[in-house]
Amino acid sequence: MNEILDGISSPSDIKALEIDQLNTLAKELREYLIKVVSNTGGHLSSNLGVVELTLALHYCFNSPYDKLIWDVGHQTYIHKMITGRKEEIKTVRKFQGLSGFPKRAESEHDIFETGHSSTSISAALGFAKARELLNENNYVVPIIGDGSMTGGMAFEALNNAGRLDSNFIVILNDNQMSISRNVGGLSSYLDTIRTDTVYKEMKEEVEKALTKIPRIGKEVVKVIRDVKSGIKQLVIPGMLFEELGFTYLGPIDGHNISALIKTLNQAKRLNEPVLIHVNTIKGKGYKPAELNPTKYHGTKPFYIKNGRPKNIPSTDTYSKVLGDTLIDIADNNKKGLVAISAAMPEGTGLDKFARKYPDKFIDVGIAEQHAVTYAAGLAASGIKPVVALYSSFLQRAYDQIIHDVCMQRLPVVFAIDRAGLVGEDGETHQGIFDISFLSHMPNMTVMAPKNKSELQSMIKFAVDYEAPIAIRYPKGKASNELKEYNEEITYGKSEIIKRGSKIAIIGVGTLTQTAYNVSAMLEENDILCTLINARFVKPIDKELIEEIANSHDYIFTIEENVISGGYGNNVVKFVSDTQVNAKVVCIGIEDDFIQHGKRDELIKLCKLDEESIYNRIMTYVNK
Amino acid sequence: MNEILDGISSPSDIKALEIDQLNTLAKELREYLIKVVSNTGGHLSSNLGVVELTLALHYCFNSPYDKLIWDVGHQTYIHKMITGRKEEIKTVRKFQGLSGFPKRAESEHDIFETGHSSTSISAALGFAKARELLNENNYVVPIIGDGSMTGGMAFEALNNAGRLDSNFIVILNDNQMSISRNVGGLSSYLDTIRTDTVYKEMKEEVEKALTKIPRIGKEVVKVIRDVKSGIKQLVIPGMLFEELGFTYLGPIDGHNISALIKTLNQAKRLNEPVLIHVNTIKGKGYKPAELNPTKYHGTKPFYIKNGRPKNIPSTDTYSKVLGDTLIDIADNNKKGLVAISAAMPEGTGLDKFARKYPDKFIDVGIAEQHAVTYAAGLAASGIKPVVALYSSFLQRAYDQIIHDVCMQRLPVVFAIDRAGLVGEDGETHQGIFDISFLSHMPNMTVMAPKNKSELQSMIKFAVDYEAPIAIRYPKGKASNELKEYNEEITYGKSEIIKRGSKIAIIGVGTLTQTAYNVSAMLEENDILCTLINARFVKPIDKELIEEIANSHDYIFTIEENVISGGYGNNVVKFVSDTQVNAKVVCIGIEDDFIQHGKRDELIKLCKLDEESIYNRIMTYVNK
Repeated sequence: MNEILDGISSPSDIKALEIDQLNTLAKELREYLIKVVSNTGGHLSSNLGVVELTLALHYCFNSPYDKLIWDVGHQTYIHKMITGRKEEIKTVRKFQGLSGFPKRAESEHDIFETGHSSTSISAALGFAKARELLNENNYVVPIIGDGSMTGGMAFEALNNAGRLDSNFIVILNDNQMSISRNVGGLSSYLDTIRTDTVYKEMKEEVEKALTKIPRIGKEVVKVIRDVKSGIKQLVIPGMLFEELGFTYLGPIDGHNISALIKTLNQAKRLNEPVLIHVNTIKGKGYKPAELNPTKYHGTKPFYIKNGRPKNIPSTDTYSKVLGDTLIDIADNNKKGLVAISAAMPEGTGLDKFARKYPDKFIDVGIAEQHAVTYAAGLAASGIKPVVALYSSFLQRAYDQIIHDVCMQRLPVVFAIDRAGLVGEDGETHQGIFDISFLSHMPNMTVMAPKNKSELQSMIKFAVDYEAPIAIRYPKGKASNELKEYNEEITYGKSEIIKRGSKIAIIGVGTLTQTAYNVSAMLEENDILCTLINARFVKPIDKELIEEIANSHDYIFTIEENVISGGYGNNVVKFVSDTQVNAKVVCIGIEDDFIQHGKRDELIKLCKLDEESIYNRIMTYVNK
Repeated sequence: MNEILDGISSPSDIKALEIDQLNTLAKELREYLIKVVSNTGGHLSSNLGVVELTLALHYCFNSPYDKLIWDVGHQTYIHKMITGRKEEIKTVRKFQGLSGFPKRAESEHDIFETGHSSTSISAALGFAKARELLNENNYVVPIIGDGSMTGGMAFEALNNAGRLDSNFIVILNDNQMSISRNVGGLSSYLDTIRTDTVYKEMKEEVEKALTKIPRIGKEVVKVIRDVKSGIKQLVIPGMLFEELGFTYLGPIDGHNISALIKTLNQAKRLNEPVLIHVNTIKGKGYKPAELNPTKYHGTKPFYIKNGRPKNIPSTDTYSKVLGDTLIDIADNNKKGLVAISAAMPEGTGLDKFARKYPDKFIDVGIAEQHAVTYAAGLAASGIKPVVALYSSFLQRAYDQIIHDVCMQRLPVVFAIDRAGLVGEDGETHQGIFDISFLSHMPNMTVMAPKNKSELQSMIKFAVDYEAPIAIRYPKGKASNELKEYNEEITYGKSEIIKRGSKIAIIGVGTLTQTAYNVSAMLEENDILCTLINARFVKPIDKELIEEIANSHDYIFTIEENVISGGYGNNVVKFVSDTQVNAKVVCIGIEDDFIQHGKRDELIKLCKLDEESIYNRIMTYVNK
């Protein structure tokens, strides 16, 4: 039983509450959230950090008439709970359950979908322009984290927003770990004074007065210069936003509901772009998460009592293979190696490397475009950069890969983590396009390892290779199945696992393991197929494929990527060009976005599980 | 005969000159440049603007040991002329001649290739990190325009550069049209004082003193607040860069060589990130270009005497069709239409629309990522956005198209100009990937018109369509050949131009005109082929293709795009799936970057001209 929460079924119920009741509600929401996420897993720290902020926003604004746009979007659990999804939140991130991100189909209060970082201000400006064209009078409020603020498109948007002459309220949700410095009480004073109604007039007067200064000369210059330096210390990061045309308010304690409400109401009165700097604590209210917010950023189910995971997560991931192998390479005197991460040292398995070789590790923040061109600059200087990114985030750097790396044929290594279906994060995070977008880039080589030891070999191969090269590998536990097949990596060559007849299966990456199991199922039906591990996605192994096409009736390609533009498509094209009649069947992901769920569930959904593939093959065999 | 220029064959010759001689050289270079570009065409205004800056840079730094990295790169003609390419510059942008952009293969002084905007600071940071790892002692100097500074990745890089503790000199080449405000003499004073050696110590003292202020209270706050506002007026945009960790010097008169040299030498003494704000005049020294820098940004050959073009350029371009058609739609009461450009209102043909409907036109600056997500925000609000970008620049927004537009199935129209081979701008500007990267995006529709009137119909169709949709069309004169074929646009349906047998040709976009002429050549050999205008690149017209595949021996697809992941590839895949034996031959651009030259020359190079296609088809016919 929750005293307040039980009575909340829509944002209008929030507006009827007193501050005390809001504080009680915050407490109840937190408890409820911890209970839910301890069962489902999900984003905990970020949601605990925005409980009061979410309540204050729904208290001060009228969603969905007013437009709340959550950057990244994994911090919307509280928002979901108070906009009619209190019960359904128990299904968050489960197959067919609520999404862990805003979803327009779920609620009229989810007005714009997010997942990748730094999009909210751009989208919000679209809403603001629509307001003008439709003669509406709503408030537009993007809520963006300090991490997301380092993404270039957030700056592009701020730069554009500064020229607005209507209401536009950016909430900078600052967990004090990157942009912000502790600027103390003086800044609060400034805030109070600056939102005062007298302030605007005064500002104009001062500005007028100061334009006369140039005539006064050196003495004034000296005074101003000295003070300027001090001012900079005092008001960072406010000045940066002010320069871009915003009125800066803050910083505000993001866990003080009445301070939040007061400031939001001040911002509503200013008919101009405003940035409210809100300090929040990631994991607020749950000790284990407060102490280790990164661990509880995206968590598996855990015991509330001690924060321990219900199932010990595997530490033996493909990500860890990357980190360990790079350490191994650096240990053996590869002087010029540099590893680059975009705000994901842990996720990409580079944390250990970073500790051992701090001078060879760079975390650029959420800035994938910069990461890739930065790597190009290193490569042009004779250093070997390894850029480790998740597949779906590498999408941000599509142009930089073509324009800065491939065009100059610079030896940059792309370690593409979370390639394929990622599971509970859903649509925005699936890594199902990289084979397609890398395969059409001239000068690019793309590899995919079948297992853990092949990933190690490929990393070493890639670091020695003198042109752009990418390795894609999936999320999760590194399997070493098929380790007995360990032919040396040769450029452009696939690996033959089994020789059979009539039917050949080519697996891309870890789906070679799936293909192996399918081949065993076929053998039970006395069908001895040929099994190949593609290894090289681009270029395809034309020699081997031609041989196979000449000696088999069917070639089945299997990849965890969209079919269009993928590996199989290029095999079909080549076989068609060779004028042989072998039929190539591409098994992969159809032309659609893939929802969230467990990885196993999604693999079944996409018919990439053993049984589905077996059945698919048998329909041809039985023809 | 040029007094100084004739003696310059490498940057070391520059260093031996006196200021007077440098000024004479600047004059000679300008005259020479105007003469060259009046013959070849090319980027004139931007090169005229950086004559003195280029000389000062080569005077103060030792290229290539010191690293000069030119953002965008079309302002490097002077750089090329004084680094051993004075004669060759006469071939600039010609087929097999010098590139209009930095090219590593041309000279050791071109250390990093550019073309798209906003990459230089990222690349330069790579060079700076390499310097550290290799224990070198060089200077790293990215030179970036104020326009390029609005691109998000430039901010990502600035944000990262601020934490460097070594020499890093960013030159902001400001033509005073966007970032800069006229801050007058006081700022010059500040500059002089701030690079003074005493300055750094003083700054530290002041900072120390000011940290004590919070205890003093309200009175100080008031003073500081007032002064802060004035300071902001006086030092914009310096403060913005200072906030990011740079020491700001400037603004400097970019046509005053001795001032430039003095400031560059000051910057060399500071072992930290420095931003030098240089004011330049686009087109400086050539009156027609000074008066109309946009016209002479990229110019065709012209008469020096009056600036008039040697051949009147066509104004009847596909770009103009876009602008005119959108005006037509807006005239007819399409209230919710908004056109968006990224710093290219003229190039995309939207200038007239912008003048007639200023409230329905947005130029976001060089910010393609923002442009697309901004459009998504508009579309989510019920407004119909048309995003007009060049194909090669749309690459920057790959992730935003997938993540913000397609995933939410938002009705954004993409008007993709300069699709296919663009000619003289070369590798970086060819629009040869858009079919591939858009075709694998779920929920996306892609169209290509065969001629001018079909482009008009497609724009109207797209504006009425309620999901993501793109139209790609080439650079240059809008042809209306085949205008007698004007069947109404039906979703997903190709247009049959001719019915024949055995051989079918499917043209994508304006290559349908080429295909038509090829079909006439075939008819001369009594081969009556079927000719189809694809119209829809995605989805492909499966019904028609299946019918054709069943009734023909060969299908030839022709597209001005890389073959991998392109239209033809998807036709091959579909025909292979249908189990018929028609052979599909994909004619398109091979897996390579395409150099500069006239469009005709490049079309021949890529074997997309009528004769090459005819010959290709005949090799199959004769089999």
